[in-house]
Amino acid sequence: MSVLALAGGVGGAKLANGLAAILPPGTLTVAVNTGDDFEHMGLLICPDLDSVTYALAGMNNTELGWGVAGESWTFMDATARLGGETWFRLGDRDLATHILRRQLFQQGSLSTATDDIRRRLGIVQRIVPMSDDPVRSIVSTDRGDLSFQDYFVRYKCVPRFLSIHFEGAETAKPSAGLLAALDDPALEAIILCPSNPLLSIAPILAIPGIRERLAGRTVPCVALSPFISGQAVKGPAAKIMAELGIAPTPSAVAAHYDGLIDGLVIDTADAAAIPGERPALFATDILMRDPADQQRLGGEVLDFARSLT
Amino acid sequence: MSVLALAGGVGGAKLANGLAAILPPGTLTVAVNTGDDFEHMGLLICPDLDSVTYALAGMNNTELGWGVAGESWTFMDATARLGGETWFRLGDRDLATHILRRQLFQQGSLSTATDDIRRRLGIVQRIVPMSDDPVRSIVSTDRGDLSFQDYFVRYKCVPRFLSIHFEGAETAKPSAGLLAALDDPALEAIILCPSNPLLSIAPILAIPGIRERLAGRTVPCVALSPFISGQAVKGPAAKIMAELGIAPTPSAVAAHYDGLIDGLVIDTADAAAIPGERPALFATDILMRDPADQQRLGGEVLDFARSLT
Repeated sequence: MSVLALAGGVGGAKLANGLAAILPPGTLTVAVNTGDDFEHMGLLICPDLDSVTYALAGMNNTELGWGVAGESWTFMDATARLGGETWFRLGDRDLATHILRRQLFQQGSLSTATDDIRRRLGIVQRIVPMSDDPVRSIVSTDRGDLSFQDYFVRYKCVPRFLSIHFEGAETAKPSAGLLAALDDPALEAIILCPSNPLLSIAPILAIPGIRERLAGRTVPCVALSPFISGQAVKGPAAKIMAELGIAPTPSAVAAHYDGLIDGLVIDTADAAAIPGERPALFATDILMRDPADQQRLGGEVLDFARSLT
Repeated sequence: MSVLALAGGVGGAKLANGLAAILPPGTLTVAVNTGDDFEHMGLLICPDLDSVTYALAGMNNTELGWGVAGESWTFMDATARLGGETWFRLGDRDLATHILRRQLFQQGSLSTATDDIRRRLGIVQRIVPMSDDPVRSIVSTDRGDLSFQDYFVRYKCVPRFLSIHFEGAETAKPSAGLLAALDDPALEAIILCPSNPLLSIAPILAIPGIRERLAGRTVPCVALSPFISGQAVKGPAAKIMAELGIAPTPSAVAAHYDGLIDGLVIDTADAAAIPGERPALFATDILMRDPADQQRLGGEVLDFARSLT
């Protein structure tokens, strides 16, 4: 049996790590948002792929919440002395990934580079980009259109969020790895990780065919709410939804994924949040403080999905 | 008045730094060997340009004898974890130069990138590559033809040196900066720095027109011997010359530069090494232990060159 998880950055990486730990090697595919990717300093930066990869390799920086554990910043200091760009922080350890990926990418594709890196780090589950075609998330704000990293890192989500679109998505093809996971006869569940629905999962669903494949699914699809008591666990999701006039609640998540999911995992704080029969609800402690939480939640999510078969 | 110095790596960088310190800002041009340059990990590595730039910025690593002072190796450690290439050591600080240079190079040329970097580091003298066309030093050895860095770093000069040639030199043009320095009506001297004559100065002389320009010079040209008492001050020059059956002596240097120089600076240990009138000899302490030595020797070299006018 196999499982497909769709993931964005940190929240997605945490659940993916929990699923990876309890599923047999080679049976989990994590398909990752690449809408946040960007060219920077001549390198290809893939924040969500890195978050998932570092989490599954056990080398993620839990203090910062992003990047590599035990990171140092000597390269950034030297770049500052040279008057270079320092708004996007590239750690000395992280840089090794970016330099290697650029080389592997130029010899192959983002898929082959991603797969090569996860193997080099001893990761036994599959990590695939949502697409090998470039897709770039563009945030329309009251200060104009901003590339995702400009909005997210350079301007720290301060501009008012008006809408988001995914440049290149219309003509992008799903990656071979994502299609293989969807077509796997052994597939038993699809999990939408607790990543930002608008910023991180939406780009994946914008790849032509993916939303249709999920709508026409033959196995249970379960999403996790990224909200607890009207607050985003991490990141700007609650601020953005407030700016859009959408309450950051399980109901809003259920409406956003309408027709795509059979079940929704919510926090016990939000239990009984959604009246009605669809999607089915499972309430538990969804805050993942450590790998033990990640495994516990991963197991609960899998049990819940299997119960919906 | 202006001065042109032709330089390779560390020895050349030391004298260049001494000359830079005593010449008025903007009156020294250091034209640097690029035959050692190579593509590595998707970056353009220019060892001799960096040695000269770091020395003139006062940021060279005097303990290692190459690279940046206060260097750290976290990037290399992370690269090793990823199973990447570690035979060529790239420090965290050094990497900032390579990343920036690649960007500047892609927007311009090696000349504009080199000039931009030296300005960012507050260097008030000019540093120019010998050419903007790629020239690559290839060492023929008893283990076959080796790129320079393979010979020098990967195999630590152990293979027997048979000959060297400079791939691309035949069709390379001198850089605009080197030509401008040669054509400067205010030029008063040309200095061949105490870099390896065969490995570091020869590639510069191999650029069509440069040897001819030096042979037809109208200002004094002075070389410095890189040898003291039959030993190279640094690097593999003595081993190579021994393998070629050439004694590492001032006489050999004078013969190598025959017709190109008016004067030769040698160590007091080698005084009276060359009988005859040409080139004129000046014996002094040529070992540069620190910036004070560099300035003292730079001043002596300039005085000697001016005495030959």
